[in-house]
Amino acid sequence: MPPSAVPPATTASSIVDLMEPVRAELQAVEHMMATRDVTAHPDLRQAYRDILARGGKRLRPSLALLCASLLRAPDAPLPPSVIALGAAVEMLHTSTLVHDDVIDEATLRRGAPTLNSTWAPDATVLAGNYMFAQAAHYSALTGSARVNRIFSEALELLVDGEILQLKARHDFETTRARYFSLIARKTSSIFRIATECAGILQGYSDARVRGLKRFGLHLGIAFQVVDDILDYTSDRNVLGKPAGSDLLNGNCTLPFFLYLERLPQPDRTLHELREANSWRLRKPEIWEAWVRSFVADVVRSSAVAQAYAVARGHIHQAQDCLALFPASVSRDALWRLGDFVMQRRT
Amino acid sequence: MPPSAVPPATTASSIVDLMEPVRAELQAVEHMMATRDVTAHPDLRQAYRDILARGGKRLRPSLALLCASLLRAPDAPLPPSVIALGAAVEMLHTSTLVHDDVIDEATLRRGAPTLNSTWAPDATVLAGNYMFAQAAHYSALTGSARVNRIFSEALELLVDGEILQLKARHDFETTRARYFSLIARKTSSIFRIATECAGILQGYSDARVRGLKRFGLHLGIAFQVVDDILDYTSDRNVLGKPAGSDLLNGNCTLPFFLYLERLPQPDRTLHELREANSWRLRKPEIWEAWVRSFVADVVRSSAVAQAYAVARGHIHQAQDCLALFPASVSRDALWRLGDFVMQRRT
Repeated sequence: MPPSAVPPATTASSIVDLMEPVRAELQAVEHMMATRDVTAHPDLRQAYRDILARGGKRLRPSLALLCASLLRAPDAPLPPSVIALGAAVEMLHTSTLVHDDVIDEATLRRGAPTLNSTWAPDATVLAGNYMFAQAAHYSALTGSARVNRIFSEALELLVDGEILQLKARHDFETTRARYFSLIARKTSSIFRIATECAGILQGYSDARVRGLKRFGLHLGIAFQVVDDILDYTSDRNVLGKPAGSDLLNGNCTLPFFLYLERLPQPDRTLHELREANSWRLRKPEIWEAWVRSFVADVVRSSAVAQAYAVARGHIHQAQDCLALFPASVSRDALWRLGDFVMQRRT
Repeated sequence: MPPSAVPPATTASSIVDLMEPVRAELQAVEHMMATRDVTAHPDLRQAYRDILARGGKRLRPSLALLCASLLRAPDAPLPPSVIALGAAVEMLHTSTLVHDDVIDEATLRRGAPTLNSTWAPDATVLAGNYMFAQAAHYSALTGSARVNRIFSEALELLVDGEILQLKARHDFETTRARYFSLIARKTSSIFRIATECAGILQGYSDARVRGLKRFGLHLGIAFQVVDDILDYTSDRNVLGKPAGSDLLNGNCTLPFFLYLERLPQPDRTLHELREANSWRLRKPEIWEAWVRSFVADVVRSSAVAQAYAVARGHIHQAQDCLALFPASVSRDALWRLGDFVMQRRT
């Protein structure tokens, strides 16, 4: 991988720094999620607590809180509806992770064993539904019918994106356009709930609400593109899964398209790929070896740098939307969140 | 089965007769569901259309519409929010059927092949989520934050009920009390959304809204008890699945408890049952034969008549709640819906 392709590593504290303007509110979101008085089956409650305790960046709630702070007077509190929105997007995100684990048959997520590796798939489906019920609860708690409507629309897009992904699996005829349509649905939908609904709950003008929706859309796309790059460039020690997992599972992502587009004879490589893929059920080691070698080729090529450039373009488009708001610490944090997305390693 | 245990068969038209006061509104619900402009993946849209076309009794939307008509002036239209509520409960119900099929690995539902028998389990999980997104969409469309809150609470109960069921599977120490707690969650939760939220959307008094909630609770319990009886007494030709499916899958229902309670030596039968069950993975035919013989014993006993009596008790409790409303064709229809639940064969 050419060093130029890799932005400098960010430190663990930098994301915490970005959240600083909404630190207290983020704690309120954590508190709301942690103290939810759930009367469910002990196993479900345990799964809920385990997943919460595992942490994560809390990127989506932070987005909601920062967007809701864009016109906030210093020291003015955020309303409870915005705290509930933060919890709603985090729980929706979590429920998709749980269901994704069933679909991917993944056994590791965030470095810790996935629910699916300790629960049977049927129970995991229900646990995902339970997390989803929590998300619906918090969405309802915002008290805004418009937020609930957007929440349900985003959910529809999200599921559609997941189906698109599933149907495109091991289909190496898939296109870059389909990839972007997929990630706009699968990933940006939750980002957009966070950003757009924060604006709605705070009573921003229509133009600003639209701006925040675009902000979420582009930030989400960039986030997913970087995620897909890291799947090529990182290893099991960092991501908790082997490099090339996406392609191993039959998912074609941006580095794949960019690499193939630059080859003098892409059809020959595609032919090889299909040949190797045809062994994946009978002799998985043949397919795995092919993917390892392909991933190494992609990482050595300019595809990674190009993919980063595409992500950077979306970050610029996201940052442009922030011009609709006056300068503030929150606007600054949202701006730098774009840079964080580019620099993240996990 | 003693003839006294079996109420007279109802004719197919009787449920249609009961829906008569809300026939036009039920068509509006169908129309709303059928014309939903979904931009999803073609396979998802096809699954959605297939499931809609398969029909079903539309019992839950009818409940919502009839409850919303309890104080309606003749010829006064129902508001669009109530039509949306009808679509929301039907879609929520459908999404649970789809996920149940994954969990039960069922291959037949309503006599037609289940989604799971033509789709892979992972796609079926997503299809269920998609149906659920439709439900959330219609719930949001009611425009009532309170309805959305109840919807999310009911969803939580529903998932919890399903987890309880899953965890109690093949656990023959489970109790009658746990069974009732399970079905109050799993089945009544959706009935209660239909009845309680209809009252809320129509601005009924708190006492009447509470009454409709109780009505839904008891009607739902009776409905599930009858469902569980039919699993013992009906056969594949009527239900589209073999008699005794519940026990085959390790689910203990009311006829099971009532039969065992009356045995002079229930422990001996439980011991036999565990012995037979221990073969279910290695030699399923041993377990299947034992269940067939057990089901025949239950059907010959008084357990079926007793279970019907329990269901009837809940129907009476449901019907009592209707005294909070003045006499009307809708109240009469809701009253007779209780009798329909007792008499249904599928």
